[in-house]
Amino acid sequence: MLYIGIDLGGTGIKAGVVNDKGEILSKASCPTLPERGYEAVIRDMANLAIQVARDSGHEIGDMEAIGVGLPGIMDPRTGRIPFCTNLGWHDVPLVEEMAKYVDVPVFVDNDATVAGLAESVAGVSAGCENSVFVTLGTGVGGGVVLGGKVFSGSHGVATEIGHMITVVDGEPCTCGNKGCFERYASATALIREGRRMCEAKPDAALAKAVGGDLSAINAKHVIDLAKAGDPDCAAIFDRYVEHLAIGLVNIINLYDPEVIVLGGGVSHAGQFLLDAVRAKLPSLVFYKGMPYARVELAKLTNDAGIIGAAMLGR
Amino acid sequence: MLYIGIDLGGTGIKAGVVNDKGEILSKASCPTLPERGYEAVIRDMANLAIQVARDSGHEIGDMEAIGVGLPGIMDPRTGRIPFCTNLGWHDVPLVEEMAKYVDVPVFVDNDATVAGLAESVAGVSAGCENSVFVTLGTGVGGGVVLGGKVFSGSHGVATEIGHMITVVDGEPCTCGNKGCFERYASATALIREGRRMCEAKPDAALAKAVGGDLSAINAKHVIDLAKAGDPDCAAIFDRYVEHLAIGLVNIINLYDPEVIVLGGGVSHAGQFLLDAVRAKLPSLVFYKGMPYARVELAKLTNDAGIIGAAMLGR
Repeated sequence: MLYIGIDLGGTGIKAGVVNDKGEILSKASCPTLPERGYEAVIRDMANLAIQVARDSGHEIGDMEAIGVGLPGIMDPRTGRIPFCTNLGWHDVPLVEEMAKYVDVPVFVDNDATVAGLAESVAGVSAGCENSVFVTLGTGVGGGVVLGGKVFSGSHGVATEIGHMITVVDGEPCTCGNKGCFERYASATALIREGRRMCEAKPDAALAKAVGGDLSAINAKHVIDLAKAGDPDCAAIFDRYVEHLAIGLVNIINLYDPEVIVLGGGVSHAGQFLLDAVRAKLPSLVFYKGMPYARVELAKLTNDAGIIGAAMLGR
Repeated sequence: MLYIGIDLGGTGIKAGVVNDKGEILSKASCPTLPERGYEAVIRDMANLAIQVARDSGHEIGDMEAIGVGLPGIMDPRTGRIPFCTNLGWHDVPLVEEMAKYVDVPVFVDNDATVAGLAESVAGVSAGCENSVFVTLGTGVGGGVVLGGKVFSGSHGVATEIGHMITVVDGEPCTCGNKGCFERYASATALIREGRRMCEAKPDAALAKAVGGDLSAINAKHVIDLAKAGDPDCAAIFDRYVEHLAIGLVNIINLYDPEVIVLGGGVSHAGQFLLDAVRAKLPSLVFYKGMPYARVELAKLTNDAGIIGAAMLGR
């Protein structure tokens, strides 16, 4: 059986033909250019699907399903996308629009969910019944696989791990609440704390690393200086890891998965991050001495969006 | 098919014969007297099971299964209870010990999980695929039903909702962490905040209600005064509801159930609590305008432990 996976982002559209094992047989991409409006974007998605089907030596009609991963959610009652901020989409009839061009069932889910599904089929959580994928990027996203299937809850609004509140009355979040987990566990959190530290301490190594231009600070600057032993950045990183570990323990206390997979930009800190997080967990888990989720780094990176989207239709 | 449900608490053991619909056909109880050691307690549980089977006009061998709900967890790898603080149990071989007296499969789960299962079979969440039960008592417990079945996670340590951290660096918890949800959403939280308020304001109505003996304050005092319009207790109750609503929104963001059921002592505040919680939720949910879980009060109260435990074996 073959499936098409489409990874729809604010910058680019990537599509590929994927087999049952999560292997990519052909792939292609094009720019999203969301300012053209959703009709043009969806037409390009359909054309890309037709193209990759041909590139794999088949026709679009040979495909079992098309899966789409996007930075938003679909309302399962209507097949419409209520909002997708990165694309400027509001109430877009994605499934209906795709049906104008291709006669193949279309499935849609959140990009973090799709990446989690990809890891559970062909990545670091392959073979696990229950796994949770956590993307540590500009925000924090979550993808949950339970019993080998994507878990989306009863209304399709589950697994918004980034908006779990871990600090009542904490940092204001873009969602309107305060103290959401993503305010503390995203790359954005490292940048914010780096800037705050430099404002209080203009001669800090971090400030020097960006030539005094605090707007140039990124998460990698903070992580690299922490790795190198700079005490200011090490303190920021340590506090970051503490917040991250608390969120992961909440995930363990609620979902108790076999594996928690860390993806997204901050996960490129690699073993340095993994060692720090793993060291914090034993004192935080509720049932001391009982086994709990392994924490691992994502393996598939760039192709996860295509593979996971394809697997939505499996 | 008939099942036996046993509700094992620190004070009493209750057992009953329950049919497929969650209806109790016969029931009986005896004191726990945990100081006798686990062997005597488990022997009494088995004898009670044999007795209720006879009272229902059957024999113990006619029962499909025996389910036990207790204030702890079972290690699914061993069938043993690693700890059950209320009973003073450590590493108790419950399943093995029961097998000495009765030749019927024995299933064990946490008392909050069992109460949630009961509500999903014969109570307020009956017919729901996905529901979360939250007990607001001395602590906060959680029971999660997904796809009509008890969800216990991969290692049996899931649904510890009370130990989800909602206030990083918050109130110290009995579990060793800080800022667990149960520090803010239990009856204990209302009592603690009531006492603190009275210490700062010795002429408060709450202090007068207990004749100045702050150790006598219970959750009902605070709730009743809040209902009656006392501004000090209303402020405590309002803050309590805010914390509770934040925890429920975390549950929505992670599990997205059809229904969240509130049980335990604080839930006896009834409609007053329900109205206050429901009023807080719309501004806190992430996807504004999308449907989300209904919040309801538990319906089964006293018999939930027997019914839910019985349903473990269904």
